Amino acid sequence: MHVVVNAAMSADGKLSSRRREQLAISGEEDFARVDRLRADSDAVVVGVGTVLADDPSLTVKDETLCEQRLERGESAQPARVVVDSNGRTPEDAAVLDDRAATYVCLSEAAPIDSRMDLADHAELVTAGEDRVDLLRAFATLQGQGLERLMVEGGGELIFSLFDVGLVDELTVYVGAKVIGGRDAPTLADGDGFVDEFPLLSLESVKRIDDGALLRWTVDS
Amino acid sequence: MHVVVNAAMSADGKLSSRRREQLAISGEEDFARVDRLRADSDAVVVGVGTVLADDPSLTVKDETLCEQRLERGESAQPARVVVDSNGRTPEDAAVLDDRAATYVCLSEAAPIDSRMDLADHAELVTAGEDRVDLLRAFATLQGQGLERLMVEGGGELIFSLFDVGLVDELTVYVGAKVIGGRDAPTLADGDGFVDEFPLLSLESVKRIDDGALLRWTVDS
Repeated sequence: MHVVVNAAMSADGKLSSRRREQLAISGEEDFARVDRLRADSDAVVVGVGTVLADDPSLTVKDETLCEQRLERGESAQPARVVVDSNGRTPEDAAVLDDRAATYVCLSEAAPIDSRMDLADHAELVTAGEDRVDLLRAFATLQGQGLERLMVEGGGELIFSLFDVGLVDELTVYVGAKVIGGRDAPTLADGDGFVDEFPLLSLESVKRIDDGALLRWTVDS
Repeated sequence: MHVVVNAAMSADGKLSSRRREQLAISGEEDFARVDRLRADSDAVVVGVGTVLADDPSLTVKDETLCEQRLERGESAQPARVVVDSNGRTPEDAAVLDDRAATYVCLSEAAPIDSRMDLADHAELVTAGEDRVDLLRAFATLQGQGLERLMVEGGGELIFSLFDVGLVDELTVYVGAKVIGGRDAPTLADGDGFVDEFPLLSLESVKRIDDGALLRWTVDS
């Protein structure tokens, strides 16, 4: 399994303002790059916070890319995965529509009613008592044939994935904007590391639109 | 007056961990760049939080650079400026030693005892009722001949400077480490912007050591 975290952050490391509204951080050329990255993935993964804040569809937008997937014998769209310990994904979330297969990863704490509602729209993966056990959940996803995973956020999920050592690659678009805010979401939130920080190797640096794309691999 | 903010952040936008201990984010080549930037400045500015957390001396380390300053008719070391609304800079702080001139910017709320202690080691600049009025304080510094200011942090001061429109340039070294943490200090903390975000123009992107140096100018 290969896990790529991809995110756009402001010049000061924020994914959004403290209001958690979706903000345009990158431009057209970077959107196209992200679309290609989605098309090259078996699944696109987000945390439930991102679903609740942005209601993204996580689908590939460029139809040519979808056709190329079909020609390769893949589904037109990559699967979507929501990491949602307590089953808070709304039934009308865009990520549950019928444009692509969807997996919702739950913990055992997710209420039965939420489970039943979600089961009508998605494959459920249950792992972990109060919080999703990411190692077990991702192993189950791998068992379903999802080998190339692209994680789009948010900062809580990204931190947790680094914490359990599941991230292979990090691509960060740094945009031409200052957001600020000690309570604004950052690329990696959670409790944070205080020692034994995950170390990276810089594979490439590239100017795109008005910002910079940094591609890192995670040292093992 | 020309104000450059210079900082090193992790790949996820943090200046330090939630413990606020000083962490090595950049390497030798970037240290040398920062030393040159200090030597090219009339003053190096930090917030009191940085003084309390790291006790930096803020002096130029390379003696050749100091000699070049003397040859240009400048003091061997740039001045140091601490923005310290409540007069919390400890009397034994490295920034108050006699290696360079120091200015402490206070608000009127700073206790008289602190003022008297600090006045033995630094020039005091009082502006603002409860918090330092940065526009007035920086105008006073300019009146003292400090035209080229380099701001080294922390995130609270950097946000406040963007908030009042005092930043001309932002250079950020993005290092090969993930720190994480919703409570870890970021490049720009404070309340944060929710609209009318300061916009930047990317002047250059350069690989240095294991990270990337992004140089932005602030759109006016």
